[in-house]
Order: sequence, then structure tokens, then C-alpha cells
Amino acid sequence: MADLLITNIGQLVTNDPSRGGILGIVEQAAVAIVEGSIAWLGSKGEVPSDYLDLAIHDAAGAAVVPGFVDAHTHIVFAGDRSGEFARRLAGETYEEVLAAGGGIQSTVTATRAASGGELFDGAAARASRMLASGTTTVEVKSGYGLDVNTEARLLGVATRLDAELSIDVIPTFLGAHVVPAEYRDRRDEYVDLVCTWMLEAAAPLATFCDVFCDEAAFTVDEARRILRAAAERGLGLRVHADQLGRIGAAELAADLGAASADHVDHATDEDLAAMRRSGTVAVLLPGVSFSMRLPYPAGRRVWDSGVTVALATDCNPGTSWIETMPFVIALASLNMGLTPEEALWAATRGSALSLRLDDRGHLVAGAIGDLAVLDAPSYLHLPYRPDADIVAAVVKRGVVI
Amino acid sequence: MADLLITNIGQLVTNDPSRGGILGIVEQAAVAIVEGSIAWLGSKGEVPSDYLDLAIHDAAGAAVVPGFVDAHTHIVFAGDRSGEFARRLAGETYEEVLAAGGGIQSTVTATRAASGGELFDGAAARASRMLASGTTTVEVKSGYGLDVNTEARLLGVATRLDAELSIDVIPTFLGAHVVPAEYRDRRDEYVDLVCTWMLEAAAPLATFCDVFCDEAAFTVDEARRILRAAAERGLGLRVHADQLGRIGAAELAADLGAASADHVDHATDEDLAAMRRSGTVAVLLPGVSFSMRLPYPAGRRVWDSGVTVALATDCNPGTSWIETMPFVIALASLNMGLTPEEALWAATRGSALSLRLDDRGHLVAGAIGDLAVLDAPSYLHLPYRPDADIVAAVVKRGVVI
Repeated sequence: MADLLITNIGQLVTNDPSRGGILGIVEQAAVAIVEGSIAWLGSKGEVPSDYLDLAIHDAAGAAVVPGFVDAHTHIVFAGDRSGEFARRLAGETYEEVLAAGGGIQSTVTATRAASGGELFDGAAARASRMLASGTTTVEVKSGYGLDVNTEARLLGVATRLDAELSIDVIPTFLGAHVVPAEYRDRRDEYVDLVCTWMLEAAAPLATFCDVFCDEAAFTVDEARRILRAAAERGLGLRVHADQLGRIGAAELAADLGAASADHVDHATDEDLAAMRRSGTVAVLLPGVSFSMRLPYPAGRRVWDSGVTVALATDCNPGTSWIETMPFVIALASLNMGLTPEEALWAATRGSALSLRLDDRGHLVAGAIGDLAVLDAPSYLHLPYRPDADIVAAVVKRGVVI
Repeated sequence: MADLLITNIGQLVTNDPSRGGILGIVEQAAVAIVEGSIAWLGSKGEVPSDYLDLAIHDAAGAAVVPGFVDAHTHIVFAGDRSGEFARRLAGETYEEVLAAGGGIQSTVTATRAASGGELFDGAAARASRMLASGTTTVEVKSGYGLDVNTEARLLGVATRLDAELSIDVIPTFLGAHVVPAEYRDRRDEYVDLVCTWMLEAAAPLATFCDVFCDEAAFTVDEARRILRAAAERGLGLRVHADQLGRIGAAELAADLGAASADHVDHATDEDLAAMRRSGTVAVLLPGVSFSMRLPYPAGRRVWDSGVTVALATDCNPGTSWIETMPFVIALASLNMGLTPEEALWAATRGSALSLRLDDRGHLVAGAIGDLAVLDAPSYLHLPYRPDADIVAAVVKRGVVI
């Protein structure tokens, strides 16, 4: 938490609709941050005298955007699935990968075997790269432990990331990621375990509970049981919903008033209408489509349905080892039918709303002072230069990282 | 030029077929570089005593690959076409973009108006980022001047880049990029100009001559005239060939013994057979497909035809502002039907061969000491982590950059 005056901003994206458009752009701007929160912003020639003594960061005419919020990640894991990735590129099916010992269970095995220090170091390296690429808040899921102790350890790693790194970490309990191998023939027992002992260990460490509710994952009835138990313990709700097929997961998310339904590739118009009514945000994940060569989420259709849209990396070792939100914004602009404006808004304000965080994802008086200074004159360079290391400086609660 | 011993390499990609496979991988390796050239490489436990006194770079178990060779770029330009890019994303046609003053002519106007210092600074920033991402040799085309003085200035910038930066720059004269507006109704006069005064000014500054030979560009007859005139002045030949349609440009490239035919999206099997016989390399450019949402080059088909395949960024301000070869390798692996092995080979050895440079793109005794140390245990991480800043260190002629 610090004081800072950022001057000489060529193009400031505020996401404040009162300033016009969804991005609320101010040209030739300055931003004053006091004690980590935004105290003032406006024309760079009209900085109130109160703020002229603050430490200064000169943006040199560049564009400045709100810090990115990555609303869906799985960055606490051990192991490497690059060999599996190459075999899938060569045409091997997921079933063949599984038969060869690959797939999510291989990450579970490696994660259970890793020490806390190894798990922390790997996740911290990823979170640090995310911060360097402009992500100032990241949601982090458990889900590669799938037993009481390991799930709690993974959430402990997320908590330690939040404490030791400058990036804010929002931990989500995802014990219902997949039924672990040892429960394959007794899935009811596993759901019981998640709803009781696992949730009891996880709830004090987590903000949200998530369930992978889809074909070949947890059913709607199983997910409802788990999510209700989580809500009783005070957790917010998220759902991996209808990625592989339409089983009613997005509808369930809306029914339970979940903060988000993620993926939603197969959600119907009725499902989206229910999400709109319940204020459930759609978290869309184009990195999976890029890495797995699958159709992209229908961003245009979801946006036009009136549902709030968020973007995230889905960073994970199996289907989308993507860490940077600028690349996700490029993918969304190029392949999901969103405009660059909508994609940027979804990667900042939309993602913050999906985490029920009203104090970030926009630059308004009172919001926390999280922002990214681009090495570019306009936010349009995010899709225009899709492989650029485009973030020149990151400011977290007024501190230049 | 320096001496260096790189030790503790977990996986060394040599591109030396005598070591097995196209990548010639050596596990647990070391490389000795003396006076900028590779003196020895092999098992890290068997370093000859001659090299044990060299300065050491510890690769810490990471993968090491030959420095990338980017065989097709247009990085000397002024101006910004991000607004045009956004309008095209919104559905505007290229004809509408042109009518609104956009397109390549807008870059020509901005480039002609820019000072030599401005042009150098912009190109140097791009070339420096390329070097930081592992590109140790880059081909740089003129083509945004389209008059005698400006084309010569652009090649002068390329020459200065080579002299002042650590990256090696191979300059290519591309006066026949497009017919400039002032010659629209007298294209024969423009071709005459290119073949005479422009070539006379450019030839001493360039290694290659390139022509954009395609529908809506220069005809096969025009390209033949220009390329023959260039060959008479001792320049090597390259051709932007059959990107938009099949007009016989790849066939022409083969007929003239050109070093490369680039794009070749519409080349027929007969065209490819002719290229194979003439030793003309196919330079494939998937970044354009990504940024313009066009079909990807048929990498698999070209590779299987027996033609040597190279990869390049095509970095330019209109259709593909992409600067890093790791991202190009990811695109080629995911979307062009090449394996990660083939894509990496094409981005190193294939690209070097397209520039007729036998001393690089592979790590063998006598080759120049250009290589990239990855922040990864395997080259497979290039497509596996497509948005990663994956190059931990770059070595250019034995110097750690």
C-alpha cells in the first residue's frame, strides 16, 4: 500500500461508464493513489494540488488499463504433461492418453507426491509471471489433491501465495474436480467425503467452492449436494458448467445463485436467461480452445444475452498452460466475436464481478490502485500484437512492482 | 565473439541428423564455444579438458535449442495500424479499409515521412525484442519506401541494425512490395524504376531481392523481369508467392532457382515438386493466419512433398505484428499439421537454409555459437506453453546476451 501519482497517461481505461462507452476512456490523464486506493483521476493538466507531492510514475504517453483479474486458474500442481500434449497433437485420443497413464490423474499423482515447498515454488513462479504480465488478482483452485489432507495443503499454498506475493489470490475449493481413481467404483462415497470432512478442512481456507459439473464429471444432483453444503459453510459458489455437453449445470448455477458458471459452451438461451436473472457471471476460457484445437466459446452470444462476461486463462497443466491475460484478450477478440473493448472489460471488470469483488477491475475513486501500464499507445495493441510482452509496468495497491 | 562452456543442459537440440531423429537430441549435454563458434558438444560428463577453463553458463537442467532464425520480416516501418486492425475485426473489408486511407499505403506514407532516427529506433526495439525471445538471425525487408531514396534508407537501417545490435540482420530489397499510389496508372514505369535506379541503389545494401508476386500484386512476368535484374547484380532471390491465389509465382521461384518461396498457400503439387528440385525453401507464415483469421498454411502437405520448410513471423504492421519465434512454433504445431519437432527444425535449420546460411540453425562443430536456453525442461514446452516468455537466456556467438 503506497501513494503514487501516475502522470502522462496517453490513454486511460477506467471502465467507468459515466465517462462514456464501456471502457470510460480518458485521454491525456493522470491517476492519484493514496494508501493503496484511487483518490483521484482525470486530465493530466488538472491534478489537484493535494497530489502533486506524491511519488511520480511517468507513463510516457502510454495506455494504462485496470489490473487484469484472472478468474479461473489451477496453478497449484506438480508434474509436466508436455509429452501427453505432444501425443494429443499427433492424434492420440484422450482415452488413449488416459490408458497410457496420462490425463488429470497423472497430475493428481504428482501433486500428492510433491512437498509443500515444491508446490509453493511452482505456483509462485506461475503467479509471479502472471503478476508481471499485469494480473493483479488471481483466483486459484485446489482440485489436484482429491483427498482431505492434500486439498487442504493446496488451499494452504494458495493462502501462502496471497501472503507472500504482491498479487491478490482468491482461493477456491475444487475437491469435486474429478472422482479420484481409488473411488472410481464408489463415487457416492467420494461425494459424501467432499460434502463432509473435505469441506470441513477446506472451508476455512477458501472463499469459493467449485464443482466440475459436466458429462463424464459430476452430475447435476451431485453438484447440487456439494454446492449446498458449501453454501451452508459460507462459501461462494462457482461451477465448471456444460463445457462438454448440456447437462443443466449452468441452470443449476443460476438456481443456486452462484457467482459464476465457467465455460458454458453448451448453455442454452434459457440457461443464459436464468444466469442473467441470478447475476451469475459467465467465465469464458478461450485458452483451452486454442491449446486443444476446440471450438471457441460463443462470446458474442453470451454477451448479447445480457449475462456479464468474464475472461480467464484456465491455467492448468493439461488443457491450457496459458498464463497471461493479454493473450486471452487477443484470443477473445480474434476468435470469440467480442470487440477488443468488450474483451478488455471482461478481463478486468467482468472478472472482478465474477469474484464478487466490487473494489477492483475499474478505476474509480475508492477502488484499489491496481493497474497495468502498457508498452503501447492504445489498448488495441492487446489483440494487435498478440505475442508481445506488452505490459511495461504493474502497479499493485499503489506500488510499482 | 567469445568463449563459453554451457554445462548442465538437460536436453540439447542439435539438428544434427547423425545424432538421431531430425532434432539430433543429446540428453545431459554440454556445448563448448571458442571464438564464437562451436568447438565441441557432447555428454556433460565428457567435456574435453581443453574446454574446462572456459567461462561457464550453467543451464540448470533446462533445454537448449539452436538460436531461432526468422526468415521473413518487415520490421523497418513507421506508423500504427491498430485502429485498422480493430475495424477489420469488426467486419470491415480490406477494400473498406483502403477506402478509409488504411492498408499498406498508410504505412508507406508514414515511413516516407519518418526520420532515419525514428525508423531505426522503432526497428531496433522490435529487433531487440526478437533477440530477447531467442531469434539470433533475422531477415529484414525494405518495401515501405517504394521510391529510390526511401528504399535505400530502409536498407541502410537494416544494415545499421546488423552493426549496432547483437542480432544478425540479413537485408532484402523489396521495392516490388506494391505499386505505389503515384504509379497506379503507370505500373510499367514503376517496374522499370525498380529494375534500374532502385535496384542500383539497393543492391550494394542487400543480400536478397524479393517480389510480391500474387493476385492484386506483381504479375509473374513483372516478377521475372525484376528478379532477373536482381540476379544479374548478384542478389539472391526470394518470392512472396501464391498467398492469395495460384498465379504461378512458386513455379517462377523454382524456375529462377530462388532461395525461398514464401506463403505458397495456393501452390500446386507440381509447384512444390519444382521447388523441391530447385532447392527452393518454402517459408511458411502462420502468424498472418492467426492475426487475420485466415486458413493456416498446409505445413503437413508442404513438408511431405519433400520441400524444405522454414518458419517466420512475417512481422509487419498490417497483417501480423508478431515478433517471437516460440509463438510461431506453437502456431505451426497446433494449426499447420507439423509436429513440434518439425516446427522447431523449420524455425531454426529450415529458416537458415532459406537464407542460404549453412553455418547456423544447427549445433555442430564449426557452426556459429548461437543458441537459446529455455525456461523449460523440454522443447515440447514451446507449443505446450504458447504464451510463455520461455527463453531464459540467449547466446550469440558465444556471448550471453
